[in-house]
Amino acid sequence: MPIEDVRGLYGIVDLAGDATDPRPLARALLDGGARVLQLRMKGAGASAMLAALEELRPLCRAREATLIVNDRLDVALAGGADGVHLGQDDLPLAAARRLAPPGFLVGVSTHGEAQALAAADGGADYLGFGPIFPTRTKANPDPVVGLEALARVCRRSALPVVAIGGIEIEAAAEVARAGAAAAAIIRAVNEAPDVVAAARRVGAAFGGLPSLI
Amino acid sequence: MPIEDVRGLYGIVDLAGDATDPRPLARALLDGGARVLQLRMKGAGASAMLAALEELRPLCRAREATLIVNDRLDVALAGGADGVHLGQDDLPLAAARRLAPPGFLVGVSTHGEAQALAAADGGADYLGFGPIFPTRTKANPDPVVGLEALARVCRRSALPVVAIGGIEIEAAAEVARAGAAAAAIIRAVNEAPDVVAAARRVGAAFGGLPSLI
Repeated sequence: MPIEDVRGLYGIVDLAGDATDPRPLARALLDGGARVLQLRMKGAGASAMLAALEELRPLCRAREATLIVNDRLDVALAGGADGVHLGQDDLPLAAARRLAPPGFLVGVSTHGEAQALAAADGGADYLGFGPIFPTRTKANPDPVVGLEALARVCRRSALPVVAIGGIEIEAAAEVARAGAAAAAIIRAVNEAPDVVAAARRVGAAFGGLPSLI
Repeated sequence: MPIEDVRGLYGIVDLAGDATDPRPLARALLDGGARVLQLRMKGAGASAMLAALEELRPLCRAREATLIVNDRLDVALAGGADGVHLGQDDLPLAAARRLAPPGFLVGVSTHGEAQALAAADGGADYLGFGPIFPTRTKANPDPVVGLEALARVCRRSALPVVAIGGIEIEAAAEVARAGAAAAAIIRAVNEAPDVVAAARRVGAAFGGLPSLI
């Protein structure tokens, strides 16, 4: 689905090991209403990442969900993903735009208003913004930006903003009220006893599952 | 220069840290006669890798040396490298071929005759083959293949073969006699007290500097 229509949970299939089967988590996130999945495999080889991507692609196609690859544009293009998500230490946005075909999505992680506006000016399709709250998922997290900065970025940018970082299920409604299109929630959703239920609660906080803006 | 004309030292600019300036080592390898350099930055972000690549490109252009990027095809394409070098856990050769423009070089690391012949059949431009001798540079090296297997692969493949793995300066002549087009020597060259002199000795073992096949 068009990225501007994605709303609710931005699912992250975060695989620690090369050998992990990505499908059970992906299915649960999709069953829970996620309309976009990002494959993230820090430290994995491109071959393992491509294999995981090829497992996820048919699942996402069947649900008309958008499939994004973290960091590796080459893997994303080779594996037929819908887009790539770039951190500030990854390939620069302009370089990715030059290499990617028209219509290929490029999202950018931003950690402050200046970065967010620069990414919007540079042609990003959506913005990641955070960490909204303190997070334990990243080893060296950027400083917490908070809900007020999130609200300002959402007001100042026409792009969908995906809030990320330390978001508990209970905080999803606040994030939605601040104007975020979606929330990326790794720990509180992916490690929940019932991932489907946790994902649905996030979607509900954004006004229903699935729901268009 | 055309990869089939590269002979002698296949220089590897192996940067441990993101912040290392790649130019002093690259200059020394080029001064020592290397006609091809590979940028290798395991664990670095794509942004740091692209920055290093952009430092190396003018040095290589000025010497008409070939510039290859390890693993990251997207970085190689974004930074105007001449090619990419793929390990067995990296992007598959066929996927890289599909994404790369005509004339872009794709080299493949191989660790046995079957892998070498498969890479040749799959459209690689050159083969890495090794480890020829025991090596300490890699954390989990593949089993040693030895000089006889190197000679067999060189006889059976029309592609240039770059021998790698545990090659001391004194062994470069044996590697050349086995039929390798070049030798990739990280520790014994890059950590030599005089890198230029060490590189020249490797080139001389292959019959002169620079020399065409």
